[in-house]
Order: sequence, then structure tokens, then C-alpha cells
Amino acid sequence: MTQVVILGAGNVATHLYRAFQKTEDIEVVQVFNHRPEKLANFPKTSTTTAISELKAAHIYIFALKDDAILKMANIIPDFGSLYLHTSGGIGLDALSNFRNYGVFYPLQTFSAKREVDFAEIPMCLEANSEKNLQNIKKLATGISTRLFETNSQQRKALHASAVFVCNFTNHLYTIGADICQKNDLSFEMLKPLIKETASKIEQLSPEEAQTGPAIRNDRKTIEGHLELLDKNQKNIYKLLTASINNLHGKKL
Amino acid sequence: MTQVVILGAGNVATHLYRAFQKTEDIEVVQVFNHRPEKLANFPKTSTTTAISELKAAHIYIFALKDDAILKMANIIPDFGSLYLHTSGGIGLDALSNFRNYGVFYPLQTFSAKREVDFAEIPMCLEANSEKNLQNIKKLATGISTRLFETNSQQRKALHASAVFVCNFTNHLYTIGADICQKNDLSFEMLKPLIKETASKIEQLSPEEAQTGPAIRNDRKTIEGHLELLDKNQKNIYKLLTASINNLHGKKL
Repeated sequence: MTQVVILGAGNVATHLYRAFQKTEDIEVVQVFNHRPEKLANFPKTSTTTAISELKAAHIYIFALKDDAILKMANIIPDFGSLYLHTSGGIGLDALSNFRNYGVFYPLQTFSAKREVDFAEIPMCLEANSEKNLQNIKKLATGISTRLFETNSQQRKALHASAVFVCNFTNHLYTIGADICQKNDLSFEMLKPLIKETASKIEQLSPEEAQTGPAIRNDRKTIEGHLELLDKNQKNIYKLLTASINNLHGKKL
Repeated sequence: MTQVVILGAGNVATHLYRAFQKTEDIEVVQVFNHRPEKLANFPKTSTTTAISELKAAHIYIFALKDDAILKMANIIPDFGSLYLHTSGGIGLDALSNFRNYGVFYPLQTFSAKREVDFAEIPMCLEANSEKNLQNIKKLATGISTRLFETNSQQRKALHASAVFVCNFTNHLYTIGADICQKNDLSFEMLKPLIKETASKIEQLSPEEAQTGPAIRNDRKTIEGHLELLDKNQKNIYKLLTASINNLHGKKL
């Protein structure tokens, strides 16, 4: 049985905790967080707000914001265990004052209100030694079927890609919803299109899947759309239209 | 039995044709297209490249590009039937030289290589009379369960929204794929994230679903990402980050 202490109580910590709860070989022996009110999410497990009360474990997981990982890495004592962080944004070396350390980055978007299926989540793994990597793989195998070894530069690139395909995409949904609202239309109307746009790339590459006025260079439609957008939406529309046109135009 | 002639042989025409083929009350009696090679997609139906050979039908559907709709509307004779176009981008009045006309706009992205379930597609309907609207509704009921009456201004707004949530979103997927490729990563790794990002909004509003460095105003991560992007990607990253930050910052 691998014993784990989770440091943090946010979305990543909570979803990781739930995933570990479903396994037989991994036991979360404690959850640590500075703010006690957040620890109510872990009713079945020992919790603490004090570093001096940290329990012994094989693995300590820093499931914290980037700044907090960097800060806590200097405060948590090295018990000789394996120390991991879950961040896409910071390097392996953030934990280099421990003897055994690595990265355990789940490439997914987590919200408090929504369950996710961990089995499908790509786990991006990195460690300071082959032995530690094997232990991280063992941990990851317990919750996911998709393990990837990625170095810190690759993980940073993945994180940047994720900002485009997740955070920015969601913002485009927000703009779509805003345009609907201003025109007395239900955002529900766009949902089948959003679903199909995401599903399409299971079958086609995103380049093959590209449609719309920008790729056709349909100036009349583009001008018509610009008329009904606010200033910020107009800037985004123009920049993305030019980007599509440049990319696909070059290939024609 | 409602008899239909489809004008056009592109993606919308092909998918509409297939949807009609599955119904009992609608018969596609002919498909018209200028280019004969495209008519091979319709082996079970009479086809023609000559306007003089158009068959009699209750409904003629202009499933053509916007420019072609405008051009063909001046060439096709008015047999007293109902004339519809399938465009999100042009007004009802594009067909106003007919006596009976309307709009039959399926709000979805169509690709030749991919089947779609028409039953879920929002059909945006408009007509020049209540009687014609009823006939369009009858036609739409045969293939979809989601009918919406939308005026030309609303349809234009929907089309603009669709550009954001579909065309631009797909372009962000393309950028994600490009970053992956440049860093020896498989685009497959991003697919669960893309899927979850689209699925999330079934449960949360896009505003509630927003995550990432932009909404947290995490400058360190943002600067790190900008370092690894090309100039065009950088411009898009900066503009969308500022847009997220403005929208959500104002609400804090």
C-alpha cells in the first residue's frame, strides 16, 4: 500500500483525492492545508493545518498553486520520501532541495462542481532519477491509463497548448454566449455546435476541420459580423480571422 | 409527401439530402448543381446541371454559398413553390423576388467526411408569411427536434457566435497542435482536455467554467508561455488573456 499525503485542498487536490480513494493500492493518509475551512472536503481522512503535524508517507504531493509550491518546498522537511508537484507551469527543479522528487501533472481542467474520469486523463510524469520515475509511474497507473514521460520544457509547452484549447476556447464560448444574450437568443442553441466542433477532431486534424468565412476569405460575411460586435470582440475577430487566413492561405 | 429540389451539392446540401432520405414524408426529387462531378454524391436521385431541366417541387432549397444564393435567386424561375436558403449569413430578403420564401438554417458545422445527427441540430427558421412559416416548420420537423424562429438580425448574430465557438475554437485547436508538434508531443494528449472543455458547459455557464492563468492574473506563468510562442501565437495569447482579465476582473 502506497501512503500519500496531499498538500493542498483546491480543485486538483480534491479530484486527485477522489481518484486515489477509488484505488486499492493507494491510501491518502493525510491532507494538509493552511486554511482549515477547505479541509471539510476530506471528511474521511486525517487533515491538518500544521506542518509540524505532517504524517509519515511514501509520497507527498504538492497540489498547490505555483507560488505556493515554490514557497512550501522550502518549508516542508525532507523525510527521505518522494516529493511531487502537480503543476504544468513550473519545472522539476522547483523541488530540487529534496533528495527524491518529481512531477505528477494531470493534463485536464478541474472544477469543483464537476466530476471527471481520471482514467482518461493524460498524466505527465518526470523525476530526478529512474527509480523515482518508476515509483511515480506506479502511482499514476493506479488512477489513469494514459501515462506520458515529459520533460519540464515539454510540460510547459503542453500547459501553453492547454491555455489555447481550454482557457481561450472557453472564453470564445463566453463571447458566443454574450452575443446570443444581446440578441435575445438562447446559448442552448450553440451547444450542439460546440459539441460537434470538439468531436470533429477525433476524426479530422484541426487543420482539416477548419471551416467558416475566414478560411474562405468571405469578406462580405466578415464585414457583416464585425458590425454587430463590440470593440473587444471586434479585435479578437480580426486577429483570429487574419491568423486563419494566413495559415491556410499559405498552404493553398 | 413533400417534394423537394436541392440546389447545391456541397456539405450542407449533402447532409440535408441524407437527412431527408431518412424521412418518410419528404422526397428529394432532384439535385441541381453547375458542376456535374459533384452530383455523383447523389446516386439515388435525379440530378441536373441545367436550370431549364428543373423538376416541379413543393420546395426549392438553395443550399449554396452566399454569393451563389444571391446569384441563383435571380436566375431560378418562380413556379409559385416555396423557396428557402440555408445561410446564416444573408437575410430573408435575398429571396424576395419569389412569392413564397424563407430561411432554413441548420446551425451546425458540416464536413464531407463526418456524419452528423440532424435530430439535434437547431433549425433556425424564418419566412415571408405565417403560412410559409408553417410549411417550413413541417419540413424541419421531419429532420430535427429543435426548431427556432429567428429573424435575419438574430440569424446573423448566431452566425457570428458560431464563428467564435466553432471556427475560431477550431483554430485554437490548430495552434495547440502546432505547439505540440514543435515540442515533440502528440496532439492526442490534448484531446481529453478539449472534450472536457466542451462538455463542461453542459453543466456550467462559460463564465463559471473559466480557469487558467489569465483569470488568476498569474503573470509569471503568462510570461513563461509567451517565451515559447511564435509572433502570431503571442499576439493571440496576449489579446485573449487581456480579454479574460478585463471581463472577469471587472466582476471581482
